[in-house]
Amino acid sequence: MFANIRIVLCRTTHPGNIGAAARAMKTMCLDRLVLVAPEHFPSAEATSRSSGAADVLEQAVVCDTLAEAVADCQVVFGASARRRSITVPDGEAREAASDLVSLSADHQVAMVFGQERSGMDNDEVALCHRLVQIPANPDYGSLNMASAVQLICYEIHMARLARGQAPVPASIEPDDARATQGHFDSFMAAWMALKDKVEFGDEKQSASLDARFRRLFMRAELTSYEVDMLRGMLSKIDKKVPERT
Amino acid sequence: MFANIRIVLCRTTHPGNIGAAARAMKTMCLDRLVLVAPEHFPSAEATSRSSGAADVLEQAVVCDTLAEAVADCQVVFGASARRRSITVPDGEAREAASDLVSLSADHQVAMVFGQERSGMDNDEVALCHRLVQIPANPDYGSLNMASAVQLICYEIHMARLARGQAPVPASIEPDDARATQGHFDSFMAAWMALKDKVEFGDEKQSASLDARFRRLFMRAELTSYEVDMLRGMLSKIDKKVPERT
Repeated sequence: MFANIRIVLCRTTHPGNIGAAARAMKTMCLDRLVLVAPEHFPSAEATSRSSGAADVLEQAVVCDTLAEAVADCQVVFGASARRRSITVPDGEAREAASDLVSLSADHQVAMVFGQERSGMDNDEVALCHRLVQIPANPDYGSLNMASAVQLICYEIHMARLARGQAPVPASIEPDDARATQGHFDSFMAAWMALKDKVEFGDEKQSASLDARFRRLFMRAELTSYEVDMLRGMLSKIDKKVPERT
Repeated sequence: MFANIRIVLCRTTHPGNIGAAARAMKTMCLDRLVLVAPEHFPSAEATSRSSGAADVLEQAVVCDTLAEAVADCQVVFGASARRRSITVPDGEAREAASDLVSLSADHQVAMVFGQERSGMDNDEVALCHRLVQIPANPDYGSLNMASAVQLICYEIHMARLARGQAPVPASIEPDDARATQGHFDSFMAAWMALKDKVEFGDEKQSASLDARFRRLFMRAELTSYEVDMLRGMLSKIDKKVPERT
C-alpha cells in the first residue's frame, strides 16, 4: 500500500508474533513486511494469528541479516525500549512517525523491531539512523512485540491521515438532520407550558428553571426526529393533565 | 494508579485476551480493570498472558452487566469499530483520550470494550456517552481486542504525559457535577414509566422509542442537579396524570 515504508522484524522467535504483527500492520494500511532470520517461517501459527492479513505474510521478504533487509533504504528507524548509551538520536513514537512519513515521500524508509526478549543487538542498532521509544510505564515498560508494532504503525497511520495521504472511510450521512432552531424552540415552548401547567417550581424560580432546561436540551443537539418525538410525548402528556384551576 | 479511570471488558470469550489487556493497561500506567460476564475468569491462561501484570488481574472486579460496571461513573466511553447509524457522538481515539483524561480529573470515567468478535451489543452502546474509533484501514479494520486496548491506553497515557501527569482539576460548582450512571438511570426509569402511563407510542415501537429517548438524554451529559430537576418535573406531572384504566 505504501511502498516506501517497510516494517522489519529481527530474529523473531515466536511465529505467532509474526502473524500478529502482520495483522497490526494491515489494520494501519502497511503491507511491506521483511523478516530477518526468523526462527520459524512460514508457519501455520503465523498464518493463523494473522487473521485476515495472510496476504501480508505471503508477500513478506525473508533476509539473513538486517543489513541486507535495509540495503536499499535511505532511512532506518529502530524501535528501542530503553535508551542506549550510544549516540544514535532518539525520539518518541509520535514525532518519529511524523518524520518517518515525511521522509517516505522521497526515500525508502524502514521501521525495525528487534528480537522479542532482547530487542535489537548492537550491530542492528548501528544500522539505525534514529531510535524510537514508545512512552510507557517507567516501572513496567514490557510491551509485547506485536503491541509495539501496532502502536508504531498506528502513529504512522495517524501521521499519514494528518497529511491527507491515507485512505479514510467514506463519510456516512447522519441518519437524521439536526433540528432547526425554530423547530427546537417549538419544543421548548411546549416544555415550558407543561412546566407551568403542572406547577413545577415557584414563580421566583421560573426564569432560572427555564434557562436551565433550555441549556440541557441545547446540549443534547437534538435531531429533527428527536424534537418530533419529544413533542409527541408532551402532547400525549398534555391531554392527560387537567387544566389548572 | 489513576483511580478515576477504569477499563471495562464486556463478555470476553478468550481468557488470553483478558491477560493481554491487563498487560497493555499496565504498560500505560492503568490498573483498574472491570470484567463484565467474562466466559472464563480467573484463568491460568489470562495470568500467563498478563506477563508481569498479574496484579492488575488480581484486583480486577467482575460484574454481571455493563450497567453494574458503570453505575458509579459519570462518563462512559465505548470503543466502536464502525460508525453506527445511531446518534451517539463519536470521535477518534486521540481526541477522545484527551477528553477522557480531562474529565477524569473530577469524574469517574469508564473506557469500555465490547466482545471480541461482535463488539458491544445495542444495550451496551446505549450506556455510552461517546463512542471512540481507532483510525484504521477502511478495508481491514480488524484490530485484535488487546491491540485496541493497547492503542487507547497509549493515547490515554500520551494525554496524561501532555498534561505533565498532573491534570489540573477544573474548579466546578457542586451543582455542576456530572450525574452518575445510576442517578441518570433513575430518571430514565421515571421517564419511561411516564411514557407508558400516557400511552405514547404503540407496543411495537416501545423499545425503539426507549432507546432513542435514552440516547438523546445521554447526549446531554446531564449534571446531578439537572437530573434532580427533570425528576422533579416528572414527579409533578405524574401526580397530575390519572392512572391508566
